[in-house]
Amino acid sequence: MAAAAKAVILLSGGLDSATVLALARQQGFDCYSLSFSYGQRHALELDAAARVAASLGAVEHRVMPLSLGALGGSALTDFGIDVPEAPAAGIPVTYVPARNTVFLSMALAWAEVLEAHDIFIGVNAVDYSGYPDCRPAFIEAFEQLANLATRVGVDAPPGQPALRIRAPLQQMSKADIIRAGVAAGVDYGLTISCYQPDAQARACGRCDSCRLRRQGFAEAGVADPTRYAPASG
Amino acid sequence: MAAAAKAVILLSGGLDSATVLALARQQGFDCYSLSFSYGQRHALELDAAARVAASLGAVEHRVMPLSLGALGGSALTDFGIDVPEAPAAGIPVTYVPARNTVFLSMALAWAEVLEAHDIFIGVNAVDYSGYPDCRPAFIEAFEQLANLATRVGVDAPPGQPALRIRAPLQQMSKADIIRAGVAAGVDYGLTISCYQPDAQARACGRCDSCRLRRQGFAEAGVADPTRYAPASG
Repeated sequence: MAAAAKAVILLSGGLDSATVLALARQQGFDCYSLSFSYGQRHALELDAAARVAASLGAVEHRVMPLSLGALGGSALTDFGIDVPEAPAAGIPVTYVPARNTVFLSMALAWAEVLEAHDIFIGVNAVDYSGYPDCRPAFIEAFEQLANLATRVGVDAPPGQPALRIRAPLQQMSKADIIRAGVAAGVDYGLTISCYQPDAQARACGRCDSCRLRRQGFAEAGVADPTRYAPASG
Repeated sequence: MAAAAKAVILLSGGLDSATVLALARQQGFDCYSLSFSYGQRHALELDAAARVAASLGAVEHRVMPLSLGALGGSALTDFGIDVPEAPAAGIPVTYVPARNTVFLSMALAWAEVLEAHDIFIGVNAVDYSGYPDCRPAFIEAFEQLANLATRVGVDAPPGQPALRIRAPLQQMSKADIIRAGVAAGVDYGLTISCYQPDAQARACGRCDSCRLRRQGFAEAGVADPTRYAPASG
């Protein structure tokens, strides 16, 4: 019996990356999920990531501490900046500097050690509108970089990249993502998307992330399992 | 008086990156130096980096903890693998997985926060022979990625990359580097290149890094200020 191919999955505890993990499992990969502790306002998402990894059969789940928060510059890691509750034009202040570049780099390091050739990330078209490091061109550039950066990439025959950055949600709407995830066995009740959940891990229902998520369940025609805080209407 | 442009400098405490910092200062940049604590066998190089940063007038020096060591896979972070004392063919076992990708990513994050447009890294032609992430093609790919990954890159006019990855040592021999560094005011006595210095921070004189360094001083016709352990002949 041949061993399954290994994949590293960036897992945040949110809806998108949980779906990605389920899709990677569905494709037959042995999944190694990776989360980061980087000074987030809420450690609750790390608990969610661990529960999601266990429920979807990840071989191993790791939480890697990163000191991105010390660099400041984001509402998600800097308590001096308010999380916005209304949609804003341009790049949101919740943007963490170079976040996906850093996350993919760490995933690449682990992939190289594991001899995994596939890295999965849950970027999608909705994020694309605001975050520069969620765009397809960014993902392609990182794949090119990955194959220049590593032993396995160097040893690969020309035109056949050894390492693949897989972003299966890239062209999907939130509703599509939720439908695919339900079909692949995701329990979205385990996930947290809210930027500012309360102490009981209940969602605010008002931040950008909550709005997109709630709308996604409605459009998918799937019952929303999110626990909202009472005030969230 | 216009403020000087800011640059982030990857600084290891070794000979090459100290030279890079001096060259960046010489070019008029306000320098923000960045070192990583990533499970190295010796913390001595971090002390060296701090001394080098101070001696060359860095505006700020930061040490960022990274848990790359937990991933294993390198003689520099894994005590189970012996550091080689003879030159080996191919990629050396002292290679740390995806190291320069990770380091440049963190530098990019800090650069974005600082609004710096220049990142300096001390890769050179000698390393090029063995490490995939020291090659010019890798540096070019990272620059391309950086401009796709960040606000400042997104906002830049087409064909004019906002972020530059500068590798001024790329085409220089070790002797050239040493001559340039001496001219730019580097005190190489502060730097440590050895993979396995003793408790008094004295170099072994036998590892790959020591051999290249010692040969560089000889070829440059510069007195070698390195403190070698007595047994190193």
